[in-house]
Amino acid sequence: MNTQATPRERLLDAAGELFYRDGVNIGVDALCKAAGVSKKSMYQLFRSKDELIAESLANVGPAYQQTLEPGVEDGDTPRERILAVFRNLDRATAGQEFQGCPFVSTALELKNPEHPGSVVARHFKQRLTDFFLGELVAAGADDPEGMAIQLTMAFDGASARAVVRAQALGGVGIRMAETLLDAAGVRAPELAGQAR
Amino acid sequence: MNTQATPRERLLDAAGELFYRDGVNIGVDALCKAAGVSKKSMYQLFRSKDELIAESLANVGPAYQQTLEPGVEDGDTPRERILAVFRNLDRATAGQEFQGCPFVSTALELKNPEHPGSVVARHFKQRLTDFFLGELVAAGADDPEGMAIQLTMAFDGASARAVVRAQALGGVGIRMAETLLDAAGVRAPELAGQAR
Repeated sequence: MNTQATPRERLLDAAGELFYRDGVNIGVDALCKAAGVSKKSMYQLFRSKDELIAESLANVGPAYQQTLEPGVEDGDTPRERILAVFRNLDRATAGQEFQGCPFVSTALELKNPEHPGSVVARHFKQRLTDFFLGELVAAGADDPEGMAIQLTMAFDGASARAVVRAQALGGVGIRMAETLLDAAGVRAPELAGQAR
Repeated sequence: MNTQATPRERLLDAAGELFYRDGVNIGVDALCKAAGVSKKSMYQLFRSKDELIAESLANVGPAYQQTLEPGVEDGDTPRERILAVFRNLDRATAGQEFQGCPFVSTALELKNPEHPGSVVARHFKQRLTDFFLGELVAAGADDPEGMAIQLTMAFDGASARAVVRAQALGGVGIRMAETLLDAAGVRAPELAGQAR
């Protein structure tokens, strides 16, 4: 625990970690204990557990998305930048702590699209689709909007597979993204001559 | 409630419905109330709530998979039989009660691959992959094993999308399956001449 952090920051950090690891149904007592904050303080800082669910997801969202983003080593073509997201996911699924996409998990667990946590989840999934869309447009892909949605579904399906099988993906998500990119005419360099 | 059913059947039915609708963290009291069975009886019939989670998922599994299977109206080519699964999913996502694939949801909520419910979830997802594989082999698809996995991920990603967006898929899952089948050389009739 970061004892320099404010009670609010400690609660957001503990909630982000425990909701992901144990699910959004984890009790407020366990959360407060992990954060080193009294329940009374928690309810002074957040109106409800539902608000804490939403704010903690909004708090971890940018950091989670950053772990997926292409780095300088990933090449600078749209194809390589998109595949980097799937390579980063593939690596993440090899970790013991992988419990799927936090946005999908939160939405599936809450089972209520009006819940503020579900709204946050929708926002971040749309950002992933928007990232794919930007790259696909840059690549001159066929039907970039449709393909951005398909890549997002590929990402979520691959994440679900790793959880259901409790195994690292071992490249199957990357290969699926390659299949989709090939179909959209966003080819690997050696095929680029015949791409358009 | 079916009052002709035994307490065990009533518990399995109520559990299958409530775990899907509200999540596996729903309390035993609510379950027993919905089933019209005392808590004492429940614990005589099932060793634990965990066992009830697993057995109720195993109980709803075949019925859920049957809703996805191709019917006589779906055509008898492997491509049409595979696409029928995605058409059936597309239709299911238009229902108010759609909460995603029950196997994926259970595994994501339990967050424990050793849980008996997670074992049941894995079994049924493998059956979907096996269905795709059988059809792909019959079609002479390229890399049928890899493509069966990709179609399973497409199915799960499409299911997740419908929940996250709280919207019917409106065909995007079907189009993704078509993209994958085209890539595997399992073409639509009008393209079949150039398929193999």
